[in-house]
Amino acid sequence: MRQDHLVAAGQLSRADVEGLLDRAAEFDAALAEGGGAALPARYPETVLALCFYEPSTRTKMSFETAMKRLGGRVVDMGSVDASSVSKGESLADTVRVIEGYADGLVLRHPREGAAKMAAEFVDVPVVNAGDGAGQHPSQTLLDLYTIREAAGLDDLTIGIVGDLKYGRTVHSLATALTEFDARMHFVSPESLQLPRSVRFDLHESGAQVREHTDLDEVLPELDVLYVTRIQRERFPDEDEYQKVAGEFKIDSDTLDAARDDLTVMHPLPRVDEIAPEIDDTDHAHYFEQAHNGVPVRMALLDQLLSNHE
Amino acid sequence: MRQDHLVAAGQLSRADVEGLLDRAAEFDAALAEGGGAALPARYPETVLALCFYEPSTRTKMSFETAMKRLGGRVVDMGSVDASSVSKGESLADTVRVIEGYADGLVLRHPREGAAKMAAEFVDVPVVNAGDGAGQHPSQTLLDLYTIREAAGLDDLTIGIVGDLKYGRTVHSLATALTEFDARMHFVSPESLQLPRSVRFDLHESGAQVREHTDLDEVLPELDVLYVTRIQRERFPDEDEYQKVAGEFKIDSDTLDAARDDLTVMHPLPRVDEIAPEIDDTDHAHYFEQAHNGVPVRMALLDQLLSNHE
Amino acid sequence: MRQDHLVAAGQLSRADVEGLLDRAAEFDAALAEGGGAALPARYPETVLALCFYEPSTRTKMSFETAMKRLGGRVVDMGSVDASSVSKGESLADTVRVIEGYADGLVLRHPREGAAKMAAEFVDVPVVNAGDGAGQHPSQTLLDLYTIREAAGLDDLTIGIVGDLKYGRTVHSLATALTEFDARMHFVSPESLQLPRSVRFDLHESGAQVREHTDLDEVLPELDVLYVTRIQRERFPDEDEYQKVAGEFKIDSDTLDAARDDLTVMHPLPRVDEIAPEIDDTDHAHYFEQAHNGVPVRMALLDQLLSNHE
Repeated sequence: MRQDHLVAAGQLSRADVEGLLDRAAEFDAALAEGGGAALPARYPETVLALCFYEPSTRTKMSFETAMKRLGGRVVDMGSVDASSVSKGESLADTVRVIEGYADGLVLRHPREGAAKMAAEFVDVPVVNAGDGAGQHPSQTLLDLYTIREAAGLDDLTIGIVGDLKYGRTVHSLATALTEFDARMHFVSPESLQLPRSVRFDLHESGAQVREHTDLDEVLPELDVLYVTRIQRERFPDEDEYQKVAGEFKIDSDTLDAARDDLTVMHPLPRVDEIAPEIDDTDHAHYFEQAHNGVPVRMALLDQLLSNHE
Repeated sequence: MRQDHLVAAGQLSRADVEGLLDRAAEFDAALAEGGGAALPARYPETVLALCFYEPSTRTKMSFETAMKRLGGRVVDMGSVDASSVSKGESLADTVRVIEGYADGLVLRHPREGAAKMAAEFVDVPVVNAGDGAGQHPSQTLLDLYTIREAAGLDDLTIGIVGDLKYGRTVHSLATALTEFDARMHFVSPESLQLPRSVRFDLHESGAQVREHTDLDEVLPELDVLYVTRIQRERFPDEDEYQKVAGEFKIDSDTLDAARDDLTVMHPLPRVDEIAPEIDDTDHAHYFEQAHNGVPVRMALLDQLLSNHE
Repeated sequence: MRQDHLVAAGQLSRADVEGLLDRAAEFDAALAEGGGAALPARYPETVLALCFYEPSTRTKMSFETAMKRLGGRVVDMGSVDASSVSKGESLADTVRVIEGYADGLVLRHPREGAAKMAAEFVDVPVVNAGDGAGQHPSQTLLDLYTIREAAGLDDLTIGIVGDLKYGRTVHSLATALTEFDARMHFVSPESLQLPRSVRFDLHESGAQVREHTDLDEVLPELDVLYVTRIQRERFPDEDEYQKVAGEFKIDSDTLDAARDDLTVMHPLPRVDEIAPEIDDTDHAHYFEQAHNGVPVRMALLDQLLSNHE
């Protein structure tokens, strides 16, 4: 990976992704061994700025943890209400000020394209941690890392279920998987199917894509089942929501039809999509998936910070 | 102390408490000498997560300072409004995610039993920093430390005054003091007396307990006077509150009847319970008590993190 | 500089200021060289508390970055809503508690005189990071540093334009510049002229001061143009605001009449006062000015922490 910034998963070639995942695996092993002493790269004098214009728990905490596990330091812009943004400052001005404080910048912003714009204004590395309905490439990397560890990325059959219309996580992951020739099955209620533009791009890339409204059709052949949250507020009335949510809920009965080595993933937070009874089975990889955010973001920060030196 | 978690003061034997207070005294001396160079334990690669579901200044800052004085690092979940909690995530899911980021977890939560539940779900050490009307064991440890430094824990006569009904600080401290055969005098208005269950437990344990509505009855014999805040919102009308608050306010006149070496404590924040004129007297130990949060929490974190290694 | 605290720019003699700016220049050079390795002073065991009772992005982040670039640690009181303040604790109590956690304290507070009061209650160094309409001395130091680097502090002709009535930044800077015999031109609409008290003090000190309502009168002779934001809420109606804001907006046309080496500064955030087209010209020093907050605050913290040892 030769880029100075990471604003979209599409920037990364298959080789870039594999390089980052290999590096993440090294960090993962070092962390599992119990510590930083084993970590190959250190940034004792380096400061990373976190600029989150929208709420986040896991993305923000895992970037912060990653930087600290690398031996580096973090400064947090704090909430937008408490910042200069509320005085009318433009994003371009804010990031140019913060550039003078920090050696890198992680940005989440409600506006699509925000990270790309920020990257044009500053010289330090910018990582897109979510821009509206746009991209969230570090989430895609940790998803790919989790798939690789659990099921392998070669010859993969994956089912992606839930809200396929609004989920930026799903769109980025699907795009990235085209690089790995995965067979993709998209399962959702009619009203939450893939957006036309994403479907078009996938077909253009020659990806093996099928769409379903019934999970049972494809469950038995899946290596990985990637579940996403269906948001209540997408539905005009509560009854309609309950019906759909119930239909796509994963529990022990659902998984009776699955392969024994099926890997179940979820970007979290979940509400009801996966029954707690699954948590203690070998299928459950969603907490591990969240934990993988740390080594993957260590690898990403390490790469960007060392490119920049 | 052999436990992996600290969820309640009752987990700690007298020997456990004394071990922790001895260790705290070492940290205290090292800090007073001006620094970390003298500190015996260091956690350069260790990350502690702070998960505060309720506002806190002193508890949160003093855990954070303690971890940093140990050379460790802290990641903060941030406010609940800005977190996944607002998306409906369960506490069990949140702590299992955060477990993957951090080597330990400090939890404050409005629900009684939250820390105990969290400790069942995660493998890293959990410290209860307050669970609703339940426990706040690290506060109890710093209270005990302050008493030991100022007056000694042997042959102690203590008066505890104020809101004895709702104060979790008082309940935990009273329970812990039964281990040290303290003579305890509880002083409060009728409406804010000890809850029946706490009174029962204290009597069962054979503690020397008496209850009063008038401070003057016992003040002359006290080694320690532990004052707590009486909250306005406990009273149906303002007049009633003012009457009670005035009656239990500690000022120079009140202390005329006290011994010269009486130690006055307060968990802070205070509003009007102790007149500022007391601050500069030798009676005042409440700021020192707050400061003791750092060495005591250093000892506690050191113990739990080294148990866990 | 022999003081224990920095509460007002007026505490600092010309020699104090020059000493701090020289030290800042050393830190600046070390940072530009790419790192902490070159930094002469280190505070690995030192904890600085940030107590911001009002929102702030750049001041808070730049103090935090400065402390971390010195190798030190930071604990943040967090927002006032989430703190003991909301339980009615006095500022004097809060700072006396926090004194026990930290080796220094940076305070922003809406009440004029708050930092001075805090400094009377605690023994650790207190830095005023803004007290209502009062002082903001570290901003003045970074302004002076920027002027010195860009134009020199000797034989300086400076124009200060915008809201001269309410801007504490302007008042502190003007006071400090009297030590350097600068020629000062104040340019503002009638309704936002210097307060009588500031004007009086400047004349008393023998400063070379002139006031204008038209920038064109003085622009050609300026070495430095210091622009401040005119706040919409100062005006009874929108039309009046738009007229004034338009008149004092700096763009390429405005600067046609300026010297080629004119330095344009702004404390930021800006809204419309300086057109973006100026950003890429050699006139623009406002981002650099913001960035200078780090080395200047490093010098200040280094001085206060080493005085205190």
